[in-house]
Amino acid sequence: MAAAEHTPEHTPEPTTDSSTATGWRYRPATPLDDTTLHRIDRWWRAANYLSVGQIYLLDNPLLRTPLTREDVKPRLLGHWGTTPGLTFLYAHANRAIKERDLSTIYITGPGHGGPGLVAGAYLDGTYSETYTDITRDAEGLRRLFRQFSFPGGIPSHVAPETPGSIHEGGELGYALSHAYGAAFDNPDLLVLAVVGDGEAETGPLATSWHSNKFVDPATDGVVLPILHLNGYKIANPTVLARIGDDELRDLMRGYGHTPHEFVAGFDDEDPVSIHRRFAVLLDQVLDEIVAIKERAAAGDTSRPMWPMIIFRTPKGWTCPEYIDGKRAEGSWRAHQVPLASARDTPEHLQVLADWLASYRPEELFDDDGRVDDDIEAITPAGQLRMSDNPHANGGLLMHDLRLPDFREFAVDVPTPGSGLHENTRVLGEWLREVIRLNPTNFRIFGPDETASNRLQAVFGATDKAWNAELHAGEDTDEHLGVDGRVVEMLSEHQCQGWLEGYLLTGRHGLFNCYEAFIHIIDSMLNQHAKWLKVTREIPWRRPISSLNYLLSSHVWRQDHNGFSHQDPGFIDHVVNKKPEVVRVYLPADANTLLSTYDHCLRSRDYVNVVVAGKQPAPQYLTMDEAIAHCTRGLGIWEWAGSEVDGEEPDVVLACAGDVPTLEALAAADLLRRNVPDLRVRVVNVVDLMRLNSESEHPHGLSDRDFDSYFTTDRPVIFAYHGYPWLIHRLTYRRTNHANIHVRGYKEEGTTTTPFDMVMLNDLDRFRLVIDVIDRVPGLAARYAGLRQRMADKRIEARAYTRAHGEDLPEIAEWVWPDATAPAATGDDGSTGINATLSTGGDNE
Amino acid sequence: MAAAEHTPEHTPEPTTDSSTATGWRYRPATPLDDTTLHRIDRWWRAANYLSVGQIYLLDNPLLRTPLTREDVKPRLLGHWGTTPGLTFLYAHANRAIKERDLSTIYITGPGHGGPGLVAGAYLDGTYSETYTDITRDAEGLRRLFRQFSFPGGIPSHVAPETPGSIHEGGELGYALSHAYGAAFDNPDLLVLAVVGDGEAETGPLATSWHSNKFVDPATDGVVLPILHLNGYKIANPTVLARIGDDELRDLMRGYGHTPHEFVAGFDDEDPVSIHRRFAVLLDQVLDEIVAIKERAAAGDTSRPMWPMIIFRTPKGWTCPEYIDGKRAEGSWRAHQVPLASARDTPEHLQVLADWLASYRPEELFDDDGRVDDDIEAITPAGQLRMSDNPHANGGLLMHDLRLPDFREFAVDVPTPGSGLHENTRVLGEWLREVIRLNPTNFRIFGPDETASNRLQAVFGATDKAWNAELHAGEDTDEHLGVDGRVVEMLSEHQCQGWLEGYLLTGRHGLFNCYEAFIHIIDSMLNQHAKWLKVTREIPWRRPISSLNYLLSSHVWRQDHNGFSHQDPGFIDHVVNKKPEVVRVYLPADANTLLSTYDHCLRSRDYVNVVVAGKQPAPQYLTMDEAIAHCTRGLGIWEWAGSEVDGEEPDVVLACAGDVPTLEALAAADLLRRNVPDLRVRVVNVVDLMRLNSESEHPHGLSDRDFDSYFTTDRPVIFAYHGYPWLIHRLTYRRTNHANIHVRGYKEEGTTTTPFDMVMLNDLDRFRLVIDVIDRVPGLAARYAGLRQRMADKRIEARAYTRAHGEDLPEIAEWVWPDATAPAATGDDGSTGINATLSTGGDNE
Repeated sequence: MAAAEHTPEHTPEPTTDSSTATGWRYRPATPLDDTTLHRIDRWWRAANYLSVGQIYLLDNPLLRTPLTREDVKPRLLGHWGTTPGLTFLYAHANRAIKERDLSTIYITGPGHGGPGLVAGAYLDGTYSETYTDITRDAEGLRRLFRQFSFPGGIPSHVAPETPGSIHEGGELGYALSHAYGAAFDNPDLLVLAVVGDGEAETGPLATSWHSNKFVDPATDGVVLPILHLNGYKIANPTVLARIGDDELRDLMRGYGHTPHEFVAGFDDEDPVSIHRRFAVLLDQVLDEIVAIKERAAAGDTSRPMWPMIIFRTPKGWTCPEYIDGKRAEGSWRAHQVPLASARDTPEHLQVLADWLASYRPEELFDDDGRVDDDIEAITPAGQLRMSDNPHANGGLLMHDLRLPDFREFAVDVPTPGSGLHENTRVLGEWLREVIRLNPTNFRIFGPDETASNRLQAVFGATDKAWNAELHAGEDTDEHLGVDGRVVEMLSEHQCQGWLEGYLLTGRHGLFNCYEAFIHIIDSMLNQHAKWLKVTREIPWRRPISSLNYLLSSHVWRQDHNGFSHQDPGFIDHVVNKKPEVVRVYLPADANTLLSTYDHCLRSRDYVNVVVAGKQPAPQYLTMDEAIAHCTRGLGIWEWAGSEVDGEEPDVVLACAGDVPTLEALAAADLLRRNVPDLRVRVVNVVDLMRLNSESEHPHGLSDRDFDSYFTTDRPVIFAYHGYPWLIHRLTYRRTNHANIHVRGYKEEGTTTTPFDMVMLNDLDRFRLVIDVIDRVPGLAARYAGLRQRMADKRIEARAYTRAHGEDLPEIAEWVWPDATAPAATGDDGSTGINATLSTGGDNE
Repeated sequence: MAAAEHTPEHTPEPTTDSSTATGWRYRPATPLDDTTLHRIDRWWRAANYLSVGQIYLLDNPLLRTPLTREDVKPRLLGHWGTTPGLTFLYAHANRAIKERDLSTIYITGPGHGGPGLVAGAYLDGTYSETYTDITRDAEGLRRLFRQFSFPGGIPSHVAPETPGSIHEGGELGYALSHAYGAAFDNPDLLVLAVVGDGEAETGPLATSWHSNKFVDPATDGVVLPILHLNGYKIANPTVLARIGDDELRDLMRGYGHTPHEFVAGFDDEDPVSIHRRFAVLLDQVLDEIVAIKERAAAGDTSRPMWPMIIFRTPKGWTCPEYIDGKRAEGSWRAHQVPLASARDTPEHLQVLADWLASYRPEELFDDDGRVDDDIEAITPAGQLRMSDNPHANGGLLMHDLRLPDFREFAVDVPTPGSGLHENTRVLGEWLREVIRLNPTNFRIFGPDETASNRLQAVFGATDKAWNAELHAGEDTDEHLGVDGRVVEMLSEHQCQGWLEGYLLTGRHGLFNCYEAFIHIIDSMLNQHAKWLKVTREIPWRRPISSLNYLLSSHVWRQDHNGFSHQDPGFIDHVVNKKPEVVRVYLPADANTLLSTYDHCLRSRDYVNVVVAGKQPAPQYLTMDEAIAHCTRGLGIWEWAGSEVDGEEPDVVLACAGDVPTLEALAAADLLRRNVPDLRVRVVNVVDLMRLNSESEHPHGLSDRDFDSYFTTDRPVIFAYHGYPWLIHRLTYRRTNHANIHVRGYKEEGTTTTPFDMVMLNDLDRFRLVIDVIDRVPGLAARYAGLRQRMADKRIEARAYTRAHGEDLPEIAEWVWPDATAPAATGDDGSTGINATLSTGGDNE
């Protein structure tokens, strides 16, 4: 949080209205003529041809000469199996979009069918508009084919580089959560969401069908799930393809959908007949949706049985039926590259040539390689093209949040350490106003923990989204409403996926979660962070709002889940990502948290991890001090230390995180009382990345700055929220690294009391004092008595908790001595420390 | 893999047969009499009383005097809401088990209902047998109550400390995958699996219902899922409780179950009537299961519609209906501690006293506090008690694997670097024999990647488990069978959960997965590692087989998923766990992989992470050398270096992982040819934990040993498989740490060729040579020409891949020079390096 960043970042003005559609309408009464169906078929053949070409061809894109070995790529990568289904649906969507002026984005769960989506964008014209070197002629086709899965080219999956995409789909499971995230608060948007039958076996996908219980038919858009039952995964049949039609229908109805079934490709049916059947079905389904929308507009926002389509086709549809006598089309053998040896085997080269020719490219492209105009007649106009829909480049539509002045929510801190506040509760009051000011583009997601994390003030401004049964007249259904801004389902995957979809389409939000459980979405974070990294290098991708985490119920104060789940390692996981996209904040009090979160909600294209406690905790900084502290990212708390101008400190007590800060301050207090001549510097770190070298992270301190805080040669005792080695990793290149001793989380927690918890992990005040005595030259010999008393105090504290079930009052109630009261005099005699401790803090 | 560990570890002899039951039988014809129903009710009341006591009471366990403030715990922790449902089912299970001699374990998805399971074990008598200080009298009750969620006591969740448990359930979502893992290959075992309706919203649970497609009704046990629909989570209604009966029934049928519905607790129905209805239902369901079992025994192992029970009760059933005028029983307010201020508010203290009294403890316990004998009349005998079932302490039943001699599967390595093998394919041949020798207690789990990971040799000995539709006569359904030893579903959560359940019940297995996707189960790993850590400290918990990962398709050779998913950070995540339970191995060739995996399958109570490539790769060590190398955990490869006895090396080239090893060896080759007077030591690391200090990890090298490998002052260039900072973290306390320069993964991968990939991440041979020139004093000035040629070579290699789509042949085909051929003479002239390179390796 360097100074320059603390001001709102530059956000381009939105260039487009948030809706490009003119509303939901039934299909016009015009008949579905054969001309259109033929166009659909030609479009589909062209898209399939372009897909096969991308996978296999280096050159000779129009097959104007016989295919040769040299025309084939040396390394064949890509996935054919899912592609023809995706292109089939693309073709039909085009027809429907054009007839209804329906703003639509296309999310393909099997995103490894990348060639199909690139082909669609090329046929739309968008690809050549976006990448002007991929021209709409033979040379452009050659480049289009060559770049696919080629060094320096484009990935084999749907990717940030693909126009119209917000969903990579490489890791399977999030198609529907992304789709619903995109649909929230976009009432005129249709999200076509293809769910692969492999993907459907993943846990996140299996629960994401229930997203329809969180949709307001009036104010949200519509997700149309299409379960693509092509029957096979990499090497196995899929479960849902093999449970029979009855069970599958039951399953879809159980998920709250009306299933519509479509089967094609398993016999010799004429293509036009196939297209007619699907076009009729799609119209029926879309009309069903329009009817729901009309009912909602008339005030009935109760949950409908939304339609969905079961789309059963052969895997690799239209590829050779058999290769070397083994089933290819309609089997797992078509999953990736069915003709992997096309370059090395003349027979396979001929099979490939025949396959390509089967699409009759001469009917699809003119002599210059330009797509026949007639095919493009089904392409919608402008931003109604799915590959050009601005919702899929969300930064185009993003409006800055209207943020209330966080300073007005400051807690009063007359002297450092005074007052007790639940930090997240204070944040909740500010968030309530954020919601009030941004009623349609800001949401809070969480797995049933928003109130537990003490953010319940937000329910003063909104409900929790809920469109399932309500128990009327009961006081058990609090704050539930179809259009709630808080979205809670007991699935971290859903929360993360929804939020990602919401952000990628240009809105804002945060995910609040227990720290212990956030590891559930580790792999999702990987993918989003990589997406952000790549989009920063793609000029046409506009910045989007950052992915903001609020991790509370953190590892140091987890009464229930503590033993089985404590793990602060999400920070470590995030810090492994590219430095330019990740930020980690550990605000120690409410005002610091407010200032931090204001910054996070203004930022763009980052992953911001904020860890903050929810238990009553002392407050240290006034709002002005907190702002300065956050802007620096760290700071010397002179009021807590005992150094004086003109003298180097004897030791640095550093801290990051609310509980470590409390213990470090208590240790500083003990040292002031008991070792009065010791010069202690207290440094608090809120922006963890400040510790990193400036060459490693944009927030990294210069070595000169770092040395000024942490000295070049004095012992540094660092009390840290997470695993201690992360501090070493961040600082190992610093001058004074050899003198940094970190106390942090060691996996020693068990169900116990708060102070017992910090003692078990050697992060407690007494241990820190012992560390200081041990590390500062000369102290150990002079303060052996104090050292022993500190150790004894730990024994006493342990024994007390075991006898009474709670911490020693003098510890639990300790507060920072009132700065306005006379400082207690320390002593190094045998009774002093106990005497001091037994009085508790001065401020009680 | 220290020497002492490479011998088979001590395993206690199994003490019990793997089945404690006498088979599946219909209910005896004896009528269900009221006496039994009254006993069930009294058992239930007793269990509920004991549960409330655990949550609230410090003392006065039998309420023999009026309840006072001092009797109540100062910190009230625990979860009441789910508990009475769990105890209700426990009581009824007891009756049925006893009547049928049915070996049963009880998995409670809402494991936070810990008090209920502890109460059950106490009523079973098991608790007092296991913990002899928790006696069956008033003092024992006092201790039982006091220890719950108390410092030094037991966790609030079902935990390793709980007799009969294998499922903690703190992190929700894995009840069914654990249950099915336990049922696999235990044909006579019933696994009662309670699914919470909160848990049911998680992704992993939502897909785990489909586990029934992987069950052989003849050779596997039976999972009876009970969906506990108590309606609320922490602060919200649950989705499945609010979709209506029709949709819920459809959902369950869609999951392949016959739903049976039970509703109770919402009116004034007499308890005996409630118990009668449930007992009848349970008998009906169990008889349905017996019928399925009979059909399977007669040869029909096709997938049946397994029964399941929808169990709808009020949340917090039997607690006060209203507290302070707000709904408690039957609402989310009963989730944790409904009377949180019982100690501080006299009115609430009275409510608590009345609540406790409502169970009429005077009818349940005698004057000494002993449970009335009549209540115990429904308790099954011995190991038929769910809390004493040996399957829930799997080490009791575990048999050592019969392991084929891995030496017989060695690949021939006449000279180092000769031959190309796919390392995992070689391992697959050994695993095939492991399967042959252990047909009922070893399984391989994977998300549809076993063949892709090149382990397909195993299909010579077994099928993939599959009990869904088959396409008869098609060649697309390969190696599918109801009793396959390989279990594949496209859900990493399922693979991990099944394997955990299988291991915890005393069997063996491994999980093979793409490295990129293993982060999906990060949080599951957390919980299992903590379980192992705790069980190592519980004397009655017997060791179980280790959790073995085989991560292939690793980050350096991921053609398709590379860009979006590369992430070697699972190693970092695992290394954050307690050192005594985690091991990480990076074998560089096939013989090393065989030796490593033999060790892993013999080990106990660890998490073993093995990362191994599947692409053709050079082989370095003979089997004897590999065994020595693995036993040391690392080693100097003298044949690859250029040091001589009597002289310190000038530089250490260290490597860990197959691709880094290849690049390091190629760099060593370049250095030998071009800087002939340089003394290079090559060190390969297979056991990553050897780098750690011996004080930090059991495998850590002593400082003296470390220094002998890595010197105290020479530059170390370390080519590492994962994120480079992990090497720093492991070695930061070592003498020579300041001279260690690590090259590793930097998140710079994109879809490209293998060598391009290592170049993008600065791990390539040329970069390593440059590092050596830059770090060894005196070289930079003398070898500026070589340095420039190395840099130019990278430019050339990059340009070549972009032109041709594959790597420069001289790089792709490089092999280690034949040790028997004369060493090429190096030069430092302007053409030498290119000349050397352009000839490729000597061994082509």
